[in-house]
Amino acid sequence: MAQKTLNVGMIGYGFMGRAHTNAYKQVGQFFPSGYWVNLKAVCARDADKVKAFADQWGYESTETDWRKLVERKDVDVIDVCTPNNLHKEIALAAAANGKAILCEKPLAMNAAEGREMIAAVEKAGVANMVWYNYRRIPAVTLAKRLIDEGRLGKIFHYRAKFLQDWTISPDLPQGGAGLWRLDAAAAGSGVSGDLLAHCIDTAVWLNGKMTEVCAQTETFIKERKHTLTGKVEKVGIDDACTFMGTFENGSLAKFESTRYARGHKALYTFEINGEKASIFWDLHDLHRLQYFDHKDEGKLRGWRSIHVTDHGGDHPYMQNWWVPGLAIGYESSFVHQVADFITGLEKGEPVGPTFKDAQETQLILDAVLASAKDRKWVNVGKA
Amino acid sequence: MAQKTLNVGMIGYGFMGRAHTNAYKQVGQFFPSGYWVNLKAVCARDADKVKAFADQWGYESTETDWRKLVERKDVDVIDVCTPNNLHKEIALAAAANGKAILCEKPLAMNAAEGREMIAAVEKAGVANMVWYNYRRIPAVTLAKRLIDEGRLGKIFHYRAKFLQDWTISPDLPQGGAGLWRLDAAAAGSGVSGDLLAHCIDTAVWLNGKMTEVCAQTETFIKERKHTLTGKVEKVGIDDACTFMGTFENGSLAKFESTRYARGHKALYTFEINGEKASIFWDLHDLHRLQYFDHKDEGKLRGWRSIHVTDHGGDHPYMQNWWVPGLAIGYESSFVHQVADFITGLEKGEPVGPTFKDAQETQLILDAVLASAKDRKWVNVGKA
Amino acid sequence: MAQKTLNVGMIGYGFMGRAHTNAYKQVGQFFPSGYWVNLKAVCARDADKVKAFADQWGYESTETDWRKLVERKDVDVIDVCTPNNLHKEIALAAAANGKAILCEKPLAMNAAEGREMIAAVEKAGVANMVWYNYRRIPAVTLAKRLIDEGRLGKIFHYRAKFLQDWTISPDLPQGGAGLWRLDAAAAGSGVSGDLLAHCIDTAVWLNGKMTEVCAQTETFIKERKHTLTGKVEKVGIDDACTFMGTFENGSLAKFESTRYARGHKALYTFEINGEKASIFWDLHDLHRLQYFDHKDEGKLRGWRSIHVTDHGGDHPYMQNWWVPGLAIGYESSFVHQVADFITGLEKGEPVGPTFKDAQETQLILDAVLASAKDRKWVNVGKA
Amino acid sequence: MAQKTLNVGMIGYGFMGRAHTNAYKQVGQFFPSGYWVNLKAVCARDADKVKAFADQWGYESTETDWRKLVERKDVDVIDVCTPNNLHKEIALAAAANGKAILCEKPLAMNAAEGREMIAAVEKAGVANMVWYNYRRIPAVTLAKRLIDEGRLGKIFHYRAKFLQDWTISPDLPQGGAGLWRLDAAAAGSGVSGDLLAHCIDTAVWLNGKMTEVCAQTETFIKERKHTLTGKVEKVGIDDACTFMGTFENGSLAKFESTRYARGHKALYTFEINGEKASIFWDLHDLHRLQYFDHKDEGKLRGWRSIHVTDHGGDHPYMQNWWVPGLAIGYESSFVHQVADFITGLEKGEPVGPTFKDAQETQLILDAVLASAKDRKWVNVGKA
Repeated sequence: MAQKTLNVGMIGYGFMGRAHTNAYKQVGQFFPSGYWVNLKAVCARDADKVKAFADQWGYESTETDWRKLVERKDVDVIDVCTPNNLHKEIALAAAANGKAILCEKPLAMNAAEGREMIAAVEKAGVANMVWYNYRRIPAVTLAKRLIDEGRLGKIFHYRAKFLQDWTISPDLPQGGAGLWRLDAAAAGSGVSGDLLAHCIDTAVWLNGKMTEVCAQTETFIKERKHTLTGKVEKVGIDDACTFMGTFENGSLAKFESTRYARGHKALYTFEINGEKASIFWDLHDLHRLQYFDHKDEGKLRGWRSIHVTDHGGDHPYMQNWWVPGLAIGYESSFVHQVADFITGLEKGEPVGPTFKDAQETQLILDAVLASAKDRKWVNVGKA
Repeated sequence: MAQKTLNVGMIGYGFMGRAHTNAYKQVGQFFPSGYWVNLKAVCARDADKVKAFADQWGYESTETDWRKLVERKDVDVIDVCTPNNLHKEIALAAAANGKAILCEKPLAMNAAEGREMIAAVEKAGVANMVWYNYRRIPAVTLAKRLIDEGRLGKIFHYRAKFLQDWTISPDLPQGGAGLWRLDAAAAGSGVSGDLLAHCIDTAVWLNGKMTEVCAQTETFIKERKHTLTGKVEKVGIDDACTFMGTFENGSLAKFESTRYARGHKALYTFEINGEKASIFWDLHDLHRLQYFDHKDEGKLRGWRSIHVTDHGGDHPYMQNWWVPGLAIGYESSFVHQVADFITGLEKGEPVGPTFKDAQETQLILDAVLASAKDRKWVNVGKA
Repeated sequence: MAQKTLNVGMIGYGFMGRAHTNAYKQVGQFFPSGYWVNLKAVCARDADKVKAFADQWGYESTETDWRKLVERKDVDVIDVCTPNNLHKEIALAAAANGKAILCEKPLAMNAAEGREMIAAVEKAGVANMVWYNYRRIPAVTLAKRLIDEGRLGKIFHYRAKFLQDWTISPDLPQGGAGLWRLDAAAAGSGVSGDLLAHCIDTAVWLNGKMTEVCAQTETFIKERKHTLTGKVEKVGIDDACTFMGTFENGSLAKFESTRYARGHKALYTFEINGEKASIFWDLHDLHRLQYFDHKDEGKLRGWRSIHVTDHGGDHPYMQNWWVPGLAIGYESSFVHQVADFITGLEKGEPVGPTFKDAQETQLILDAVLASAKDRKWVNVGKA
Repeated sequence: MAQKTLNVGMIGYGFMGRAHTNAYKQVGQFFPSGYWVNLKAVCARDADKVKAFADQWGYESTETDWRKLVERKDVDVIDVCTPNNLHKEIALAAAANGKAILCEKPLAMNAAEGREMIAAVEKAGVANMVWYNYRRIPAVTLAKRLIDEGRLGKIFHYRAKFLQDWTISPDLPQGGAGLWRLDAAAAGSGVSGDLLAHCIDTAVWLNGKMTEVCAQTETFIKERKHTLTGKVEKVGIDDACTFMGTFENGSLAKFESTRYARGHKALYTFEINGEKASIFWDLHDLHRLQYFDHKDEGKLRGWRSIHVTDHGGDHPYMQNWWVPGLAIGYESSFVHQVADFITGLEKGEPVGPTFKDAQETQLILDAVLASAKDRKWVNVGKA
C-alpha cells in the first residue's frame, strides 16, 4: 500500500519538541498506517541551535521565523511547542494558511484566546489537536473504557493532584530557557496552567464538565531573579493551587497542584469513586491501574493492581509494543496520540482533544483563577 | 511498690466502650505504673445488656442512670462513650462531682458546648482528656517527634483525608444503635464531626492552628428511613465534606472526608510537605511511616517505608510490645493513651489532647460547617 | 451460663510468655465461651523475677521448679514457653500428670523427641497443641479457606521465606537470656528450627506434606562469645538455610530463612501459585492478603490487595474485633489460638496444630538438616 | 562533526528484532555520538515477510540467506536474533568475515558452543556483545554503581527469580514461530536458558562468579502438540527451575524461574543483602530501585523507593531522556546498550557483556542442568 506523506513543521525544540519528534519517528514502526510522517522543518530563533537539533533528530530543514514556516507549501501540519503566550498567534496564522495544527497544552493563555483559536480552525476547516498526552497512557485509556462501559455506576468523587518539588529553592530564577514556566508573562499562570491543566483535561474526558469551582492559590516565594532582566522581580505565577468544585453529573471535585511537595517529582494521580467501582492511577507508576470492584465476592474484595501491559486487544495500544509484563514509557503516550491523529485523518474525523475539547480546560482554569483571586465560588463559563 | 487504684466508671459500651475497656485491661501489663486501673462500673440504659457487658469485660458493677454513676464516691474517672449529644451534660455533671473525665471525640456538638465543658473542668480542677487516639499510633507519634526536631523545615502543605464507603446503600437506615452516626440529632454532623475531627486533631497537633477555611459539603442520599421513628426522614448530616484552608504557620490545608469512596474502609491518611522533608501516613497500614528526606544523597533519595516496630526507644511505645517486625493493632493506640494519662496523673500534669486542646477542632469544625452552609471563606474562631 | 474455669500453669515468661498471657487475658472478652481462663501459676528459676512477672500479669502464684508445677492439682493446662531443649522433658511430665499441654514451637529438638511426646500425650489422652500462631493471622486463615474451596486449582509452586537481620554484628554473643536462640545446645538449630519451622508448619497446613528436600545451610559468623561461659566458642547453629523440595501434591517447594538479610526485621512471606489463582502473604503487613484470580475478566486481572478486616463472617476472626479497616496486631493470633483451643475443649475435639500435626515439621526439619550436612537430596521421614 | 556510518545487518525480525531495530533508530537522537547507525539489511527465510518488515522499519535491503548477509561488504555489524540453535553457526561465519557481532542471549546452547564462539571472535578480533539488556535498565545500572562504591559491604545473599504464567494451558503447542521457546531442539532448554539466563547474567555482573550449584527442574506438562510435526510430542524443556549455590565471594545464591506462576507476566526480581545495605529490583516496576541503608539513623531506617528518573548525572542514562518523574520503558535498555557499544567502538574498548562475559552464564547453566539431571551438587566449570 502506498503511503501518503504527512509533512510536519515544528516550532520550538525543547522538552516537548523532543517528545513530539520521537513520536513522529516511532509511529510508523509501531502503528503503521496509510500516512508516513515526514520531518520537514523545525523552527526556532537561534539558527545554529535549531540546525543542530534538525541534524540530530532528522528534520530536513530549519527556519528561524515561525511566520515563514506556517506559510511553507511543503508543510502539512504545524506543531506548536512554544511557550503558552505564542500559541494563539501561531495557531491563527497556521489556520489561515490551511495547516493542520497540533498545539501544546494548555491550548491558550485563557478562554478568550481559546475562543479565537477555535474560531480560526473551524473557519479554516483544518484538523486540530492539543497535546494532552496523558489521555493515551494505556492505563488511563483503560480507565476511560471502564467508565464508558458503566462499570463505576454513579460517580460520587473525582480527585486529582499533580505534585512536584523542583521550585522550592528561592535561588531558582524565573524566565528564560527552561524556566519560562516561572514567568507569568510567558506562561500565563503557574501550576494551574502547567499541571492542573493536565488533571482537568483528563477529568473532563473521564467525568464530564464542571459547573462551579472554589479555589485557593499561593505563591510561596514572592520574588525571584528574572533571567531575562537580571533583576529580582515579583513572581506572578501561582506556586500552588487547590480547588473544590462540582461536576455536571453531581460528583464532587477536589484538585490540587503544587511545586512545593518535597519528595514528588511528577506525581500526577487521579481517583474516581463510583457507586459500583473505583479507579486510581499514578503517573509515577504509569503502567498500572488500581481498580476496586464492589461486585467481587465479599471476602475477596480488594484493590487490584492491573499491570496494563497485556496483548490481544485487552489493554489499549499494548498489542503494538512488546510482550506482557514489559512496561512502556512516558514517551509512548505521544506516539499513541500521533497514531490516533493519523487515524482521524484517514477517516476524516476529528480526534480529541480538539481545540474545542481543550477549551473546556481553559474555561475551568479561568474560573479557578478568578475564584482564587476573588475568594469566592465561581461558575464555570460556557464555551 | 504499692500501686494506687484508679476506679473507672464508663458510660456507654459500644465500639468505643470495648476499645477503652481493652485499654484499661492491657495497660497494667504493657505499661506498668504506679496506678492500677480498676473497672469499677459501667453504665447504660438497658439493665440486662449492661450486666452482660460487665460480666464479659470484668466490670465490678453496673448502673442504668449516668447521673448516679457520676455521683458515686468509689469512682475516680468518668469515661464518656455516649453519642455526641450527651457529652456536654455528662461532662458538666462529672466535673461538678470532681471526677477526672475521659471523653470520646469529638469533644462536643460545637464550640459553644466545648467552652462550657472547658470552663467546668477548669473550675473543678479535674484531669480531662479526649480520645483522639490516633495521636498515639506509634507511626503518628514518630511523625510528631520528627516535626518537633525540625526535620521538615518550613511547612508548605498539609493534606489529610478520611475515606469510607459504608453508607453508599440507600437502604441503610439512620438512627439507633450502631447507626446514630447518620442521625444529625445524635451526632451533630456527619463525616465532619465523625471523621474529619480525627484529621483535624492530628493536624493541629502536628502543624498548629488554622486561621481560615473554605468548605464544601454534600448529602448524596437525601432521605433515609429512621430507625427510631420508622419513617423516611430527611438526612441532616453531611455525607462528604471537603475543605481548603490556611494554617497559622502559612502552610496550606486540604482536607476531605466521605462515606462514599467505594473501596475504602477507613482510609485515614495525612501527608506533610516541608522544605526539607515530607511525611505520609495511612491508617490502613498503620504500622508504617513514609518519610522523604531531601538531605539524602541525590541519587539515593526516595520515600522510605519505615516499619515502626523497633525497640530500644527508637520507635514510640514499641519497646513495651513485641520484637522488631511484629506490628501491633489499632487498639494499642488506646492503651498508649491510658498509659500517658496515668503518667500525667503521676506527674500532676495535663496530658493532651485535653478538653482545651480538643476545642481547637470544634472551632475549625464550626468554621467548616458555616463555610459550607454560606459558601464562603470563614475565619476560624478563637478559643 | 456458668463458665468452667481453665487453670493455666505457664513455664517461662519471656517474649512468648508475655504473648501467651496476653492471649489468656483477652480471649474472654473478644471470644467469650464456656471457659474462663484463669492464670493459676507461672514458673521460672529466678524466684524474684517470676514473682514480679506474676504481679504484673496477674498470675495467682509462682513456682521455681517446673516439676512441682506440673504436679499441682489446681492446674489444668501446662504452657511450655522454655527453650527448645526442655520441651520434651516437660511435656512428658505434664502428660504423665494428665495435664493438657500447649507447647511453644518447634515441638521438639528433632523428630525422635517428637515421637516420644506424641506417644506421651496419646497415652495420657490429654489435649495438646503447638503454638504455631501464624495459622491464625486472619489473612493466613483466609488463605486456608480459599485453598480448601478449591479456588487455586492444581498447585505448581509454594515458596516461603523468613528473613531477619538481627545477628549480623559479630559482637553479638550467643547463649543466655534473650540469646539462647544462637546457642545450639539450647535451640537445637538456628534459623531452621526458629524461623523455617513457622514457614514449614504453614506450608504443610496449606499445601500438604513434602516428600523430599535438598538444603544448603551456612554459618556466616563462625565464633561468638558465649554468655554463659564467657569464652569465644564455635557457633553451632545455622545462620541461613535454603531448601528446595517436592510436596506430595507434586508442587515444588522453595524455602529460605536467614538472619543476615539487612533491612528485614521479620519478613515472613509465602506465595502459592495454582493453576487458577495465586496467593501471597507478608508478615510485615499481616492484615493484607494478595490474591490473583485468573477467572477475572482479562483486561481487569490484577493482584488484589485484600484488607482482611471485614465483619460479618467474611474475614476469619474479625467479627469479634473492631470495624472494617482497623487492623489488629501480631498478638491477636495467639488470642485466636486460645479461642480455638477452648472450642476444641468444648467439643471434645483435637485442635491443630496438635503435637502430631507439628511432628510433620520436625520430620521435614530433620531431612533439611541432614540434607545440608550430607549435601544431597533426602527423603522426608514418616511420622 | 562528521559521523561515521555503522551498517547493521540483522538476522531474524521477531520480538527481539523489533526491540533492536527500535534501539538503532532511537540511539542517534537520545545518545548522539560519532557513529550513525544505518539499517543496511535484514535477513529472514520468508522473502515477502522480511520485505514487509524492512519497509516498515526502514531497512535498506533484505536477504533470505544469512550466509549471504554475513558476506556482504556493506555490512559492519551482524545482529543475531535467531533461535538459540543458530547462534553459534552464524557467529562463526560472521567472525570469519570480520564482522562485529551483537548476539541475542543466551550466547549459545551450552558452554561448549560458547567456547567456539569466543575463540572465533578473539581470532577475528571483532567487537562482540550479547543482548543481556537488563544490565542497562537505569535502576539496575544504579544498583551496579552502588555495589561498586562498596555501599553494601560484604554480601551475604543474592536471590533472583523470573516468574511467568503464559504456558499453563496444556493446549499451547510447542515449536514454530513465537513458540520455539517451548521446543528443546530450537531453544536448548526451557526457563533456564530463556529466563534464568537473564538472572544469572545480572548476578555475575553484580556479585561475581559462582562456584557450585544444586538445582531442581520440573516439566509440568509432559506432552504438547508440536506445531511443525502436527503430532503430540514429549516436551523436552524445563518448565520450572530452582537452584541454590555459592558465589566466589561467599554469598549464597537462590534462583528460580518458572512459566507456571499464575499472576506474573514477567516478574524478574533480584535482591542483594549486604552487611551494610540491601537492594531490590523488580522488572514489573523497572523504574524503581528499593534500597535499605543501615547507616540511616535508627528510627528512620526503611526501604527507600527510589524513582530512578533524575537528571544531572545522578541516575544512569536518564539525563538523555525526559524530566524527573517520567519513566522510560523496557525498550530503552536496548537503546542504552547500543549507545554503550558505540562508545566502545569509539574508544576501541570491549563493552560488556562480551561473548566471554556471557560465557559465565553458559557455564552456570550447564552446571544447573547437570545438577538437576543428576540430583547432586555440581561445580561450575571454568571458562
